[in-house]
Amino acid sequence: MNSLQQIASVLKESDNILIFPHVNIDGDAFGSSSALCAALRLMGKNAYIMMSEDAPSNLDYLEHDYITRDASVLEKTEIALMLDCSGYDRIRGREEEYKAGRIKICIDHHATVNSEIEYDYYHCEPQSAATAELVYLLIKELGVEINLEIAESIFTGITTDTGNFQHSNTTKRTHMIAAELYDIKGFGSKKISSLIYDRRSRDEFTLENIVLSNLTFYADGKIAVGTVTQDLLDTLGCNLSHADPIIQRVMSINGVEIGAIIKQNPEGFFKASLRAKSYANVAEVAAQFGGGGHVRAAGCNLGENIGEAKFKLIDALTKAVNV
Amino acid sequence: MNSLQQIASVLKESDNILIFPHVNIDGDAFGSSSALCAALRLMGKNAYIMMSEDAPSNLDYLEHDYITRDASVLEKTEIALMLDCSGYDRIRGREEEYKAGRIKICIDHHATVNSEIEYDYYHCEPQSAATAELVYLLIKELGVEINLEIAESIFTGITTDTGNFQHSNTTKRTHMIAAELYDIKGFGSKKISSLIYDRRSRDEFTLENIVLSNLTFYADGKIAVGTVTQDLLDTLGCNLSHADPIIQRVMSINGVEIGAIIKQNPEGFFKASLRAKSYANVAEVAAQFGGGGHVRAAGCNLGENIGEAKFKLIDALTKAVNV
Repeated sequence: MNSLQQIASVLKESDNILIFPHVNIDGDAFGSSSALCAALRLMGKNAYIMMSEDAPSNLDYLEHDYITRDASVLEKTEIALMLDCSGYDRIRGREEEYKAGRIKICIDHHATVNSEIEYDYYHCEPQSAATAELVYLLIKELGVEINLEIAESIFTGITTDTGNFQHSNTTKRTHMIAAELYDIKGFGSKKISSLIYDRRSRDEFTLENIVLSNLTFYADGKIAVGTVTQDLLDTLGCNLSHADPIIQRVMSINGVEIGAIIKQNPEGFFKASLRAKSYANVAEVAAQFGGGGHVRAAGCNLGENIGEAKFKLIDALTKAVNV
Repeated sequence: MNSLQQIASVLKESDNILIFPHVNIDGDAFGSSSALCAALRLMGKNAYIMMSEDAPSNLDYLEHDYITRDASVLEKTEIALMLDCSGYDRIRGREEEYKAGRIKICIDHHATVNSEIEYDYYHCEPQSAATAELVYLLIKELGVEINLEIAESIFTGITTDTGNFQHSNTTKRTHMIAAELYDIKGFGSKKISSLIYDRRSRDEFTLENIVLSNLTFYADGKIAVGTVTQDLLDTLGCNLSHADPIIQRVMSINGVEIGAIIKQNPEGFFKASLRAKSYANVAEVAAQFGGGGHVRAAGCNLGENIGEAKFKLIDALTKAVNV
């Protein structure tokens, strides 16, 4: 493990830097990538975010001209920096470009590290609420003055990864950093919050209402299950990512210990997202289906024959809530 | 206007204190009342929260044995302290008990002050995100060490009044205080957040889904209107307060500038809650119907004949979004 100070020194000495956020990019991966890219450019460096997919449309304000899909935008990659992840499966489709970096750096806050990855410098703080916290500290080490754009990117990472300062990963440092962002002229949470949360399409909104109106409850209401089929997505012109926020809403119901959303992918296969409120171990349930995750948030594949798989899943979930 | 230091001095010299939070008590009014009551009792004082209604069930963890409906629980009211409000209409049904206080104090963060109220000491900071922030500072002036219960009460006030640190009232100080709460052993946002937000009854959840599934859109989707009738509430065993969170969800829809929820009270009369996202002035619209409020959050009564009133309201709202 290297200090952020060490990593800052290496970054200072290099001019061409590619940042690799994780696949299924989220507010923290994108927010911390944009903040770091902005800071490096303020230092006069050639810096880009290497992506192979589109970012969620509600995060469009983070894009600027930072994104590239082609590593050759830089003459050579002096530094390849994996951000908010630690594994080749998390930078799918961009592994070779990362490996081509002369110096490889990895900065993350996830506890699970893929032991196969190569790096020259590595900094991981699982107790950090968001990678954006680490990038904030790194930018200070770089000596770059935080401007409004950087502040808004950092805030995006922190507020999305902490569930707006509500999740158990939130710490004193999280709030201390948020407090410091208010020192930057023009900064306010409302603007960013509206961009992130208040631009859901009417179809996405309808999707959520339909799924939530058709929840099925099991085990005396301790389990709530919703289903998102491709038919429904097609009808509404939605894609699977639009179904992501639904499970959070399921967890607000009194008595629900486990929430499950079963989602069908475009190839017809089903997968389940599982959340537990306070005591059930959904990682164990997911493992029974070849999946994995955290104790209170996990996922697994259910195959093509949803009828049978769902029956088995409900059975396993019922055992998990009746421990 | 008096300083919190002055108010702390007065509180220190008195033994019998009644706290008056506002009607339709919310997280900030209740959280700050509970925090102050706990602190005063730690100082050995007789302190109670005077209420005339039931608190929302999700705030039950703030109750302890602080609540009284009878001022005579104290031999005499040395201090009557109006909290999170500044007007007799905001302590409806308890005006006489407040007036009977030998010393009257008012601590608030709302900009609108009812000029009729009497007070000996008055402290109002409209730029404070929550009254809980002011109570936190007051408790420090009182010299009471913040314990876990007080920290959780303060957090309740702050997080509910700032929409989880997302609303524009959130400031550097808001986050600084939240950061300090983490110094108290055992404090974590997740526990409180779950108590506040994750105990909605299935009927309340169904109410929200029904209203949101039946929104009507006007002015090219810039206006979204939902309706909550007593019939619907009766069918689901819900009351009007269960409809309060719905408007927040309406505002998440892309393109919606004004959200309106029309609610029927048990006497059959309709009122409208209005929210604007970024530019429309709903206080002006509300004023046309004899109501009032803030520029982006207001309310008004629509009478018994909803058909005609709704027509006029939509007309006024359309003018407000097409400025």
